[in-house]
Amino acid sequence: MVSKNQIKLISSLHQKKFRLAHQLFFAEGVKCIQELLDSSLELDHLYTTQDDFDAVAKDKKSHIAESDLRKISVLATPNTCLAVFKMPAEANIQNAGLILALDSIRDPGNLGTILRLCDWFGISQMVCSRETVDVYNPKVVQATMGSITRVNVNYVSLTDFLSSTSLPVFGTFMDGDSIYKTALPQEGIVIMGNEANGIAAELEHLIKNRLTIPRFGALQQTESLNVATATAIVLSEFRRG
Amino acid sequence: MVSKNQIKLISSLHQKKFRLAHQLFFAEGVKCIQELLDSSLELDHLYTTQDDFDAVAKDKKSHIAESDLRKISVLATPNTCLAVFKMPAEANIQNAGLILALDSIRDPGNLGTILRLCDWFGISQMVCSRETVDVYNPKVVQATMGSITRVNVNYVSLTDFLSSTSLPVFGTFMDGDSIYKTALPQEGIVIMGNEANGIAAELEHLIKNRLTIPRFGALQQTESLNVATATAIVLSEFRRG
Repeated sequence: MVSKNQIKLISSLHQKKFRLAHQLFFAEGVKCIQELLDSSLELDHLYTTQDDFDAVAKDKKSHIAESDLRKISVLATPNTCLAVFKMPAEANIQNAGLILALDSIRDPGNLGTILRLCDWFGISQMVCSRETVDVYNPKVVQATMGSITRVNVNYVSLTDFLSSTSLPVFGTFMDGDSIYKTALPQEGIVIMGNEANGIAAELEHLIKNRLTIPRFGALQQTESLNVATATAIVLSEFRRG
Repeated sequence: MVSKNQIKLISSLHQKKFRLAHQLFFAEGVKCIQELLDSSLELDHLYTTQDDFDAVAKDKKSHIAESDLRKISVLATPNTCLAVFKMPAEANIQNAGLILALDSIRDPGNLGTILRLCDWFGISQMVCSRETVDVYNPKVVQATMGSITRVNVNYVSLTDFLSSTSLPVFGTFMDGDSIYKTALPQEGIVIMGNEANGIAAELEHLIKNRLTIPRFGALQQTESLNVATATAIVLSEFRRG
């Protein structure tokens, strides 16, 4: 059975400061947990309402009552299981290939969806400004659908990172060149900006290549695309060749 | 001041059956409401915590206490205003141009984001299966960011609709032709499927053109893209020429 201290620990992991202090995070749902178990991540403990996950050692799992799971879940409709994992060490950034950089993405759903996109497009490195939502936020973990195990995420000062790279740097702006008509390399850094404010003004001078996703239609009143859908289009353009 | 009956009416509009019965829906937030006011939609009544929206006639607006707004809002952080609008009559589907068809999209955020994408890409007609979430669901209205006024949405039987159209029909499948290597027309119907199950099996024989968004990277373990990001890539491909 799950103890009161375990419940207290998991509840605390909703907050970034406690995730950092314990070096732990959690995921929910059979499918997501299975993907994480199949990766190189180390399981701390599994909590389940059912007698499942046979491959997990008995001392690594506990039965949890549905009422307790509901208390600690981030899901509107709680699942049957929750697993706590150890945070892996941050891998060093390799200055090669295509790298996605995020400037102050605040919405957990957006970050999770973008991670899933990176995984789809074979982009294994993401670099986030320190204002970007934490990748181990339980809502992010849930939205990644397991992709979190295949994409390295580093939190850095984007000013320092962009100043020191030798790779070409791309960003999307309202006044950029059409992304459909620009030759795009296989190596480079692509920056996507904050949901409300776009890319921070102080980063602009570090971005040599200004791109834009053209807008169609007679009215052209839409102000902007959601950052996850814009990222989808940009990454697709870089990969389609 | 807002009356108890008005609060009761707005609360009821969270549910589709009451939206249909009253032929009313609501939107929140200054920016979203302003976009709707600037459109051909007819305002029923505006509720605001502040003395703003000067262009709205006095008999069409009421002061609302923050505590009352919190009660009826769908937002986690309630805004300063909420406006009830009359549902416009459903426009007839024109069998021309590019039409987006949705098969059982369930998540309000996804539908709202997809509507915004249609607006961006100049697609003025969407056709949804009757199982698709209601476009006047307040969470959908919020996610469209005003695009709801520029895209016609019809709820139909997709089987009937696809059986009777003379336009070419496209759908995305795991085993389709690469969307990057297929010549795409300016007129046609593009179908996107349900978040978990994709396009319903009973529609497949009505879809002559099977497309796929290629996956990149060595591992290729991502199972699927989020439907809104997949729609972004597909619409971008149709429009880029």
